[in-house]
Amino acid sequence: EALLAEAAEPGTPPRPCPCPLPSGDTALSRLVRRLLSARRSLDLCLFSFSCPQLARAVQLLHRRGGRGRLVTDAQYMGLHGSQIGRLRHAGIQVRHDQHSGYMHHKFAIVDRRMLITGSLNWTTQAIQSNRENVLVVEDAEYVKAFQDEFEKIWEEYNPANYRFFPQKQ
Amino acid sequence: EALLAEAAEPGTPPRPCPCPLPSGDTALSRLVRRLLSARRSLDLCLFSFSCPQLARAVQLLHRRGGRGRLVTDAQYMGLHGSQIGRLRHAGIQVRHDQHSGYMHHKFAIVDRRMLITGSLNWTTQAIQSNRENVLVVEDAEYVKAFQDEFEKIWEEYNPANYRFFPQKQ
Repeated sequence: EALLAEAAEPGTPPRPCPCPLPSGDTALSRLVRRLLSARRSLDLCLFSFSCPQLARAVQLLHRRGGRGRLVTDAQYMGLHGSQIGRLRHAGIQVRHDQHSGYMHHKFAIVDRRMLITGSLNWTTQAIQSNRENVLVVEDAEYVKAFQDEFEKIWEEYNPANYRFFPQKQ
Repeated sequence: EALLAEAAEPGTPPRPCPCPLPSGDTALSRLVRRLLSARRSLDLCLFSFSCPQLARAVQLLHRRGGRGRLVTDAQYMGLHGSQIGRLRHAGIQVRHDQHSGYMHHKFAIVDRRMLITGSLNWTTQAIQSNRENVLVVEDAEYVKAFQDEFEKIWEEYNPANYRFFPQKQ
């Protein structure tokens, strides 16, 4: 919370966080810090996104003028607590799959140079209760593979390409 | 299937696979091939494991004399189609978490030198229908981090350390 407040209004003295969650250097704060390091773009490919702190970080980046894009799963985006509606409302571009399987990726790419990936869905339940892993990788080889997958999915899920009815031959 | 048959009985000519699934070089066959490359050990840390082909690969390695260890999630190991019972029956050591959150990792370490990790649960549904990623990494730095996590969890979930009732002070 202190990180987000400082990022929202730089220069104001940090107020002590009133929430009962662990403060200081947690896995969540490290993840927020990586996201807030974005200067130009943030590409998100997330099966499930219900963590309000992470949504606020994405909104902050968007307000600062970075380009945020988000791909998510059609079945999970409407679940209780999902942050997708809020992010769409804030102006972030969101696309989702249109097939019955899950869009099960859980990765983010910061400024096309840092890949954040792993088992973690961006949910409060996962962050607080699960055993998870998050890899942060800057090797160009890995970043490129995920960036290519992102661009491919982004185009595939473009609403302009929706095909709700079979085409006549 | 052809890969597993060849690994089970080396030297016998491969029979054509009767199943209607895609044959040849698929993501599943590449994953099976990496697993079958194990010579000494296979450490698995899997939230959900219901794919019969992958279970057969693990059994084969066990029969060949490699050391197989498996950590999984207590809530998901009993679900319909889970391969955990079969693997236990075949003599593979299995441990599971004892808390309400999920043991949500999805990684494997081959011979303590190759890390296979990503978003993929080892289920037929995920392999056939989902959009997933699997990273195969041999950099010692990443392998060590996951191997350390595996050893930590393996010890933590040792049945000898179970504490079902609070200890008297």
